[in-house]
Amino acid sequence: MNIEAVVAPLAGRQARPGGTIVRAGGVEIGGPAIVVIAGPCAVEDEEQVMSAARAVKAAGARMLRGGAYKPRASPYSFSGLKAAGLALLARARAETGLPVVTEVMDARHLEQVMACADVVQVGSRNMQNFTLLEEVGRCRVPVLLKRGMSATLAEYLLAAEHVLKGGNGQVILCERGIRTFEPSTRNTLDLGAVAMLKRHTHLPVIVDPSHGTGVAWMVPAMACAAVAAGADGLLIEVHGHPTRALSDGGQALTFEQFSAAMTTIAAVASAVGRRLA
Amino acid sequence: MNIEAVVAPLAGRQARPGGTIVRAGGVEIGGPAIVVIAGPCAVEDEEQVMSAARAVKAAGARMLRGGAYKPRASPYSFSGLKAAGLALLARARAETGLPVVTEVMDARHLEQVMACADVVQVGSRNMQNFTLLEEVGRCRVPVLLKRGMSATLAEYLLAAEHVLKGGNGQVILCERGIRTFEPSTRNTLDLGAVAMLKRHTHLPVIVDPSHGTGVAWMVPAMACAAVAAGADGLLIEVHGHPTRALSDGGQALTFEQFSAAMTTIAAVASAVGRRLA
Amino acid sequence: MNIEAVVAPLAGRQARPGGTIVRAGGVEIGGPAIVVIAGPCAVEDEEQVMSAARAVKAAGARMLRGGAYKPRASPYSFSGLKAAGLALLARARAETGLPVVTEVMDARHLEQVMACADVVQVGSRNMQNFTLLEEVGRCRVPVLLKRGMSATLAEYLLAAEHVLKGGNGQVILCERGIRTFEPSTRNTLDLGAVAMLKRHTHLPVIVDPSHGTGVAWMVPAMACAAVAAGADGLLIEVHGHPTRALSDGGQALTFEQFSAAMTTIAAVASAVGRRLA
Amino acid sequence: MNIEAVVAPLAGRQARPGGTIVRAGGVEIGGPAIVVIAGPCAVEDEEQVMSAARAVKAAGARMLRGGAYKPRASPYSFSGLKAAGLALLARARAETGLPVVTEVMDARHLEQVMACADVVQVGSRNMQNFTLLEEVGRCRVPVLLKRGMSATLAEYLLAAEHVLKGGNGQVILCERGIRTFEPSTRNTLDLGAVAMLKRHTHLPVIVDPSHGTGVAWMVPAMACAAVAAGADGLLIEVHGHPTRALSDGGQALTFEQFSAAMTTIAAVASAVGRRLA
Repeated sequence: MNIEAVVAPLAGRQARPGGTIVRAGGVEIGGPAIVVIAGPCAVEDEEQVMSAARAVKAAGARMLRGGAYKPRASPYSFSGLKAAGLALLARARAETGLPVVTEVMDARHLEQVMACADVVQVGSRNMQNFTLLEEVGRCRVPVLLKRGMSATLAEYLLAAEHVLKGGNGQVILCERGIRTFEPSTRNTLDLGAVAMLKRHTHLPVIVDPSHGTGVAWMVPAMACAAVAAGADGLLIEVHGHPTRALSDGGQALTFEQFSAAMTTIAAVASAVGRRLA
Repeated sequence: MNIEAVVAPLAGRQARPGGTIVRAGGVEIGGPAIVVIAGPCAVEDEEQVMSAARAVKAAGARMLRGGAYKPRASPYSFSGLKAAGLALLARARAETGLPVVTEVMDARHLEQVMACADVVQVGSRNMQNFTLLEEVGRCRVPVLLKRGMSATLAEYLLAAEHVLKGGNGQVILCERGIRTFEPSTRNTLDLGAVAMLKRHTHLPVIVDPSHGTGVAWMVPAMACAAVAAGADGLLIEVHGHPTRALSDGGQALTFEQFSAAMTTIAAVASAVGRRLA
Repeated sequence: MNIEAVVAPLAGRQARPGGTIVRAGGVEIGGPAIVVIAGPCAVEDEEQVMSAARAVKAAGARMLRGGAYKPRASPYSFSGLKAAGLALLARARAETGLPVVTEVMDARHLEQVMACADVVQVGSRNMQNFTLLEEVGRCRVPVLLKRGMSATLAEYLLAAEHVLKGGNGQVILCERGIRTFEPSTRNTLDLGAVAMLKRHTHLPVIVDPSHGTGVAWMVPAMACAAVAAGADGLLIEVHGHPTRALSDGGQALTFEQFSAAMTTIAAVASAVGRRLA
Repeated sequence: MNIEAVVAPLAGRQARPGGTIVRAGGVEIGGPAIVVIAGPCAVEDEEQVMSAARAVKAAGARMLRGGAYKPRASPYSFSGLKAAGLALLARARAETGLPVVTEVMDARHLEQVMACADVVQVGSRNMQNFTLLEEVGRCRVPVLLKRGMSATLAEYLLAAEHVLKGGNGQVILCERGIRTFEPSTRNTLDLGAVAMLKRHTHLPVIVDPSHGTGVAWMVPAMACAAVAAGADGLLIEVHGHPTRALSDGGQALTFEQFSAAMTTIAAVASAVGRRLA
């Protein structure tokens, strides 16, 4: 279905022609300033998450990402520190003041995750987990809803509608790459989705170039491209030692790479009439 | 990832070279006989489900399908009768003796669903809902795990591994069409998946030509093709009045169409050295 | 575009509701009998093509395939014997009586190819080489037009319309697998395309399970599935020594495998009310 | 195949680590400055092409695009003015001084096209028309080789290798959108391809956001994103009256829209350390 044919009275642009600003931990997403959210794929240990939090803050990130509950294709892969990981994120927030984004995989963990998260993420694999969408829809927590790997934009807008219908209007959308025939990248980053979503919904739209490519050296260029395409924010994986990362090390920037990228990202933001938050 | 590279010690073919037979309500899936599971997409009312159950039984189906909890892209679409739908399925089973397959969308509904289902279905949108996979893995109920819309066969095998790792070896796989660029059908039925899965796992593999095409008149031909490709069973949508169906009417066979299709399906089964259960 | 929306006054089913039978070298394609076309991917040498021609004939094939002009992704791959390959095909035809199908890659080779071919093939990569379609449209030679790797069925029907508009109504369509996200097979064989094409065009539709999978052991099952889906014929790669083949050896059947497959294919044909030609 | 595994001794980056600059009609593509090529999809009449040429020149375009030979899915669509269209392009070049890019669909037209074109385009549908690639490889004319609709980057690099192997090193690559499951846009623009190609080949890489989206209002944002991603140039469709265009009007910018877009494109170029040519 073409996104133009979707019936989404709550998530559709016409509901709020001026756009929605989502506020989380003092940060505004969807306003004129572009918000960079950065941090490790998974929380691994205290040193790793604390050093990453400090580094991304120093480089200009305004929120910290980090997974405590990690969906993994294989049951034999590292699937996160769970409650202990949430505690480490809370500690990083306490020290750095950065609000935290972390994923919730199951409605039964929601209360626990909300206790330490400023934004709860619903991951790509759960974009059409409708009972989870309904649960976060009943909460008063900002939700970062990632696009499914092969979700059409129409389906994506309707997934957001599930959340809004529950009464929670604080939803951030995130393009994170789609599945195509191309084997050289993990996913194909669909930046046209940013423009198309911005036209058809009032919700903020951010981009995850780390999952969108799966290739660390591509991330800075794709982050710049995302901002040029109109994204309201970026979600970037950063790790102190990518080669030792327990998950997705191949797509993580080092602290230095992230810091260097932020300079160009800021310049591109300025070129399109915006600035970094 | 190529399916040949997958590490799946429990779901991989080598774990049980002779193949697994899943037993549900007296029916064996994965043995020499091909099992046809049929019924409406969604349970709508008593008359609808009872008449469908009788009709599909008379035509040779050995199990009844019907959705009580229905995942729907839009929150404004009919999403099933839920508990009341389960009760109607239980009634249809009591009268016809057909074991029942129905979907579970949320771990919190599992007990309720298991009380009336002989096989619980994990739908395409939940193929990588790992906490749900773990929950059904802890149960002793046969699981029908549908392939995700854009899941690679490697990911699919690993999703089954999640269930088996929990201790539940009674898993049936189901190819139900994948997402491609072709707009003339709802999905593209991937019958090569049947051959590939049969080689790489010992689990039974069935095919859903109704979702696989989304087009009722294509279903009989695709059902025959699925059997010729080596499927252990079929999952077919049948409705007394497809044009009045509350969901997916365009892909449902009438009772007469289903009955006619069963004759050809049986002939093809015989041609490849099998028979209908 | 949905195939139902296509304007194809010549190729559309309504132009010849009863269907078209293409006649080539005494063989009829599109009638009640199913035609198996078999032989090597590429013509390599006299012994190879002669032995393959004899073997496939003995097993029941009614036409010989073999490439003299081979499109190859890399300019460093074997690209066929060209004129010498055509001469070998002519010799194989003379000895076995099997009509020959071979590819034409360029309008400037058309006369030369037609001199030895009973059917000229326009390959997947040239499905929208419109000047080539127009040239074969002006000839009086049967054309085997393969579906492009990512051609929609609407585009495919229109490609046939290009040929028919030139005055040549002797066109055979061939589903040969489409490009998807799945890495375990070379292509994803789209058997729903057979049913959909048969409804929307009067032209014969055959299936190439060799390219459709790229995996030799999958070919017999997929050939049976194609016949069950309604195909009018099969295009199968056979090689005396697949491991020594100069191209696509991984998808070629040995003589013994081909012969064994023909038995099951014949049984499936009979199950759906047809027979092998 | 992953692009890292490709054997392309001529097109691969290692052959010319410093990168190739293609020179056409006094314009350099592949150097520090970004070249914008603009003009109508198809040449329709003198007034249309002349006014477009003047307008795009005034707005900062350095080359003129326009199709005289147009590949069209349907044989009933407008397929270009052919020789008359070439003559009009020559006139536009004479008046404005803009070098001309136009498509060649058939090796037999090559001499005629080269007589009026500074760059000959090989279109997406011909990316694997290997005899055409060989012919342009024998010429001394710059070639704009567009990516096939579902070509992997590995195949694309090898297609360029076909041209270079013939002796013609003046090849420009062009990402123009790939085919995915998303129906809301004509194609999915793959800007990751720009970064990936720039790393693996020394050839200049440009982007066509007009075909890449099929949606005029998306073109300015996607053009900016392409530049931010590292593109060496842009190919943009511009038409005096898009609603009256004989082909692809839905993706053409008006003169005013193009002029406005150029301002932002220039700012983004500057942000990433480049400038418009």
